[in-house]
Amino acid sequence: MQNVKLVLEYDGTDFVGWQYQENGRSVQGELERALKQILQGDTRVTGAGRTDAGVHARGQVANFRSAQKIEETSLVRSLNGVLPKDIVVLSAEGVDDKFHARYSAKGRHYKYYISQHPTALFRKYCWSLSYKLDIDLMKQCGRLVIGEHDFSSFCKSESEVEHHRCNVLSTTWTVRDSVLEFDISANRFLHGMVRALVGTMVDVGRGYRRMEDFEDILSAKNRTAAGMTAPACGLFLEHVTYEQ
Amino acid sequence: MQNVKLVLEYDGTDFVGWQYQENGRSVQGELERALKQILQGDTRVTGAGRTDAGVHARGQVANFRSAQKIEETSLVRSLNGVLPKDIVVLSAEGVDDKFHARYSAKGRHYKYYISQHPTALFRKYCWSLSYKLDIDLMKQCGRLVIGEHDFSSFCKSESEVEHHRCNVLSTTWTVRDSVLEFDISANRFLHGMVRALVGTMVDVGRGYRRMEDFEDILSAKNRTAAGMTAPACGLFLEHVTYEQ
Repeated sequence: MQNVKLVLEYDGTDFVGWQYQENGRSVQGELERALKQILQGDTRVTGAGRTDAGVHARGQVANFRSAQKIEETSLVRSLNGVLPKDIVVLSAEGVDDKFHARYSAKGRHYKYYISQHPTALFRKYCWSLSYKLDIDLMKQCGRLVIGEHDFSSFCKSESEVEHHRCNVLSTTWTVRDSVLEFDISANRFLHGMVRALVGTMVDVGRGYRRMEDFEDILSAKNRTAAGMTAPACGLFLEHVTYEQ
Repeated sequence: MQNVKLVLEYDGTDFVGWQYQENGRSVQGELERALKQILQGDTRVTGAGRTDAGVHARGQVANFRSAQKIEETSLVRSLNGVLPKDIVVLSAEGVDDKFHARYSAKGRHYKYYISQHPTALFRKYCWSLSYKLDIDLMKQCGRLVIGEHDFSSFCKSESEVEHHRCNVLSTTWTVRDSVLEFDISANRFLHGMVRALVGTMVDVGRGYRRMEDFEDILSAKNRTAAGMTAPACGLFLEHVTYEQ
């Protein structure tokens, strides 16, 4: 069996999310259907991160095992020929048998876009906010989450994980014209974590909560403490890193 | 009567174009419907450029006359509240009675995007091409069209205009990662001109035609001479300039 790593871009707008669902159009489901057509057999695909409905990806990573010998360039071409237009395979690569898209990942990088004026062209790829935001306060919030913390306050309550500690390596807020970009890298992310962080930082940026509230929320370790969840459409899984 | 100038952004994907059509969703039609709802009367809107079906705009300009006194900020807010999400009014401004969005315009700036690899996220906003392009040749073509020329070869044959002379002020090709951006400014554009220019420059860039062919096409003043028409989805009306 050959172990194959894929890097994927997708437009999350019309998906129920990464993960296969019986009744719904999932990225995993579309990918498995395309592989079945090409490899002539059932193939189970594992993704690095289970992006939610509406979340986009520029560098999602997945892997699968194939009994057939795969030629990388022709696999990319065949998959893109068969996949719907809102999923594109950027690369395919034969990897070590031990490689696992999710468990082997050392880090993930997400990006979140906020537009400060209504936009027609970018509307499916950002959160459009009309109120004025204090970007310096939001940068301060961003700095507070760097390092290892228990992010229970920023995790969807139903998620079943052993623990809620994540090591955040970096966060930045960048202003480009009327668009704010939030970048965050961590070893792992909890379900809904980036969107809860962004929503709560926006609460601070618009003056609805204070900086001290943000600190209290982080230390509360309780999801009910945090602010609103930012909409899915502004979130992009940028890339996943592995040890070489 | 007050003369009002609007600046508009729209996502052309789901429109039959700028111009009103009996059976089809046009930008003009949607705008006139929104104004009717707000101003309680029929209002005819004039656009600076009649963008084709699928062409986008970041800075289309339109004007209309209103019997009611208009408050600019509240008009923008009301229009954006009523318009579909793929049209956004960026600004509204009371202007001199002589102002005409089309006839007063001194220049227009269009942008065209080509992606050199398949893309899921950008697919509705670019022309995705898999073959290798010689960007230096395309830049040379771009330089050839600067100045006043008869652009009959790059005009849809059915268009009824007095003459086909346009004064092209600047053209640039910019490479950003795998995306090529073509910028062109001119006093006026003929119907289908940017898309015919881009299509023919791509023919040269991919080696299907030579530089000398491009020069011959320009001097032929005959549309059948030019190459293919680049798809509408890659084209953006960036802005329209007026004398101050």
